[in-house]
Amino acid sequence: MQKRIITISREFGSGGHTVGARVAEALGYAFYDKEIIEHVAEETGLSRAFIEEQGEESPAKSAFAYSFLGRNAAGMSLEDYLFASQRKLILELADKSPCVIVGRCADYILKGRTDCLNVFVHADKEFRAARIVEQYGETDRSPEKRIREKDKKRAINYKYYTEQEWGSANNYDLCIDTGTLGIDVAVDVIVSVAKSDR
Amino acid sequence: MQKRIITISREFGSGGHTVGARVAEALGYAFYDKEIIEHVAEETGLSRAFIEEQGEESPAKSAFAYSFLGRNAAGMSLEDYLFASQRKLILELADKSPCVIVGRCADYILKGRTDCLNVFVHADKEFRAARIVEQYGETDRSPEKRIREKDKKRAINYKYYTEQEWGSANNYDLCIDTGTLGIDVAVDVIVSVAKSDR
Repeated sequence: MQKRIITISREFGSGGHTVGARVAEALGYAFYDKEIIEHVAEETGLSRAFIEEQGEESPAKSAFAYSFLGRNAAGMSLEDYLFASQRKLILELADKSPCVIVGRCADYILKGRTDCLNVFVHADKEFRAARIVEQYGETDRSPEKRIREKDKKRAINYKYYTEQEWGSANNYDLCIDTGTLGIDVAVDVIVSVAKSDR
Repeated sequence: MQKRIITISREFGSGGHTVGARVAEALGYAFYDKEIIEHVAEETGLSRAFIEEQGEESPAKSAFAYSFLGRNAAGMSLEDYLFASQRKLILELADKSPCVIVGRCADYILKGRTDCLNVFVHADKEFRAARIVEQYGETDRSPEKRIREKDKKRAINYKYYTEQEWGSANNYDLCIDTGTLGIDVAVDVIVSVAKSDR
């Protein structure tokens, strides 16, 4: 079966956003990355900054600590509310039209759908460090530190909401190293697998 | 750069051997899987059964326990001797001619070579259970149990000799789920990436 939904999970700085955008363009699919923030902000009334920051990244230092954060007797924190809203939106988008969705545990949310291709894009730290400086500029923190922080926050968030290990090959149909293979090859592979008829 | 060496790490029952053989055929490369056992047996005098069993699988229940197993004051166990022999052979084979090598931590042994493509082939347990019965027949242990045992032994062996996590996407250029994508697609992807000029 041709894949009508492609989810891209990605390490910070690996070029996952670019890969996703180019795959969407090549296949004529809708593309959702930051666009999800806008939708969720409208739906929930949460601020764009909060959604951008907490939508994929844990503010706690472990999945265990995260489970206590901001939860009251009713059991729902603002982060849980955000996750539930993102989840609902992703399910709606996936049903609406063929699309590429970047991040936000979409692989887990759409798990088991045979029309969905789940991809993980990763790269070595040197490639990612050079790329985040090129894409987002320098900050007072070193690129290596920014990578370590983002990796950790995304991994905890993913683990907390999916009970799966971030970056384990078993969660994905396809994992690609953009550092060694390059972005062009990654795009070609994903497009050709999405089009393949199995 | 075209890839002249392809290593295939694979979960038991995922079809990694078949994928590797077909990739080698499509590219006109040499193919090494069980062939390595013959070479190492000649070189070391170790029995084929020992090499087959211990060449990729830890007899201990953890990497920590493994580090004590059969090691004397000189620090080398039979397993270490086997690993060293396999390593030497893999380096020689990689230098000799373009090839596909299945298993035996070849990805780690050849790490850093830009002419080498490291692939991990995995699949869900249902796919693998059906496949091992089809390929190797029934035994008194259930296919699920055989998978659990092999996975665990290979993971410990890999961890012990490479200090890396078995099945973590970061160790590989490409990871492919043969359960969801099928063996044909896996072969096509690997061949096209191996031929790509980056």
